[in-house]
Amino acid sequence: MRVLILGGAGMIGRKLAERLALDGRLSGAAIEKLTLYDIVPATPPAGSDFPVEIATGDLPAAGEMERLLADKPDIIFHLAAIVSGQAEQEFDLGYRINTDGTRAVLEAARAAGHRPRIIFASSLAVFGAPLPEPIGDDQAAAPLTSYGAQKAIGELLVSDYTRKGFVDGLALRLPTICVRPGKPNAAASGFFSAIIREPLAGQEAVLPVSEDVKHWHASPRAAVGFLVHAAALDSAAVGPRRAFTLPGVAVTVGGQIDALRKLAGDKVAARIRREPDPFVQNIIAGWPRSFDTRRALELGFRAENSFEEIIRVHIEDELGGVIPA
Amino acid sequence: MRVLILGGAGMIGRKLAERLALDGRLSGAAIEKLTLYDIVPATPPAGSDFPVEIATGDLPAAGEMERLLADKPDIIFHLAAIVSGQAEQEFDLGYRINTDGTRAVLEAARAAGHRPRIIFASSLAVFGAPLPEPIGDDQAAAPLTSYGAQKAIGELLVSDYTRKGFVDGLALRLPTICVRPGKPNAAASGFFSAIIREPLAGQEAVLPVSEDVKHWHASPRAAVGFLVHAAALDSAAVGPRRAFTLPGVAVTVGGQIDALRKLAGDKVAARIRREPDPFVQNIIAGWPRSFDTRRALELGFRAENSFEEIIRVHIEDELGGVIPA
Repeated sequence: MRVLILGGAGMIGRKLAERLALDGRLSGAAIEKLTLYDIVPATPPAGSDFPVEIATGDLPAAGEMERLLADKPDIIFHLAAIVSGQAEQEFDLGYRINTDGTRAVLEAARAAGHRPRIIFASSLAVFGAPLPEPIGDDQAAAPLTSYGAQKAIGELLVSDYTRKGFVDGLALRLPTICVRPGKPNAAASGFFSAIIREPLAGQEAVLPVSEDVKHWHASPRAAVGFLVHAAALDSAAVGPRRAFTLPGVAVTVGGQIDALRKLAGDKVAARIRREPDPFVQNIIAGWPRSFDTRRALELGFRAENSFEEIIRVHIEDELGGVIPA
Repeated sequence: MRVLILGGAGMIGRKLAERLALDGRLSGAAIEKLTLYDIVPATPPAGSDFPVEIATGDLPAAGEMERLLADKPDIIFHLAAIVSGQAEQEFDLGYRINTDGTRAVLEAARAAGHRPRIIFASSLAVFGAPLPEPIGDDQAAAPLTSYGAQKAIGELLVSDYTRKGFVDGLALRLPTICVRPGKPNAAASGFFSAIIREPLAGQEAVLPVSEDVKHWHASPRAAVGFLVHAAALDSAAVGPRRAFTLPGVAVTVGGQIDALRKLAGDKVAARIRREPDPFVQNIIAGWPRSFDTRRALELGFRAENSFEEIIRVHIEDELGGVIPA
């Protein structure tokens, strides 16, 4: 079992590599080799029994994916992307990496001829307002960002290349990952994680939206679990529609704060400062609030059951299991 | 008002050019120039008051669309495509013309910098079974052909380029065009037209499916009317979702035959020979049956109201208004 992670230096890529090092196996077979590819060198996971190759390059460059796929990896996780904000600012770069890049991966896999399982990380950004609540599996992708359009195009390509028998692909719309570890970032969605992460770290966090904003979350651990589960999924059970939304927890910002207070106390929860930001509020207003992910549940995908559980995962995985005072 | 028709040699392109020659105007302004572009030379419409340029070439070739759009056409009808059957047989050609080609048109329009109205002919093929009946405006595109995937990608591109202010685009999912004039073709949908056209021409037609097959039709005249209407549409009224399905007549094959019998008599209707073809039946089973086209109706698009009306249009436009004996 050879495994390739495109975007191996990102947060999910790193955590997935760590999980693979821990398991030593994927989809019922021992891992012989793991390749981590990104634009910057990924960090190899500690303690793996298998060799880890670190590769860097420009994903959509001519011949790049052909070279990378020459050893016919059995499972390819395609997590590489220009993220939402940057794809909106740099239109050409977004299409080059997110659209041409995804097509380059699929074309190289087709040329390799061994029909690998390709797991493409798609996004809730394929959906744009007005939206029903909850959003079902048959909801049209009508994105309001270039990133969302590029992910929706990727979904169509993955389904079509799979239908033609060139690859065995899945396009998984990941929930917003919460609690994202690390530093605060400039993403409009950053506050969903920051209002939990920063107070737990003794820092103040700014809440730019009202507490009735509802969104769809899963932990980094659940995200890795989705990818590992997808690697082993029976293709026949999926059928021709290869893109679907993954399970998550629908919770309001108020519900997030209640869960934080319950687990870590009033003092921690008091570190959230309300500072309404019409710019962020306006962006968030177009985002999905909750989903009916029947297909993913039938296929055995599982996320957390409550936002408390999501916070507990953060405390276990990032804070050594200790709730700070 | 300069007008460009990409795919000007096709049946709809030809009829659209004839209509423009007749009207002399489009979107409230006199036409100064019409360019008909295709892979083979289009026939200029008779009797136009404006100059007609006939251009041929390879649409996605580097620099091709930039050259063609150098005189900044105000309205671009993008009807050029590799059709369904061929796109399924010739995978690379389909993506080259239908996906890369559409992107080349949008990129050239963006480079021209004048934000032209671009009307992209999309297709019901963006939808694949299982489907509700009727299909609403929010139904997910989940195509079961490469042609459908390519059209769905085109829709996403048109919406995104429009949202970014590079073009003023519309992606219109045309109903199946019936009655298609001309010779029978090899398309799986060919019989929908053949069972009307051939009996009216004194010929026998083969019906390969059962009479309860229902589908969504509009006449060639209605299709041209959609395109002309779209050229004048107020962009603000459309909003960010630039792709939608156009009105049509939902009718079963039995209903088509009843309408033919009512208009042309038993003798004509008796020229339909039932010869069930499991191959065609299987293809058709995955096709949409009917639509709720609320958005298009609100935007003023109109088709025929009955299949009898569709046959009458065929008799008027193709048979000189005379129902043959």
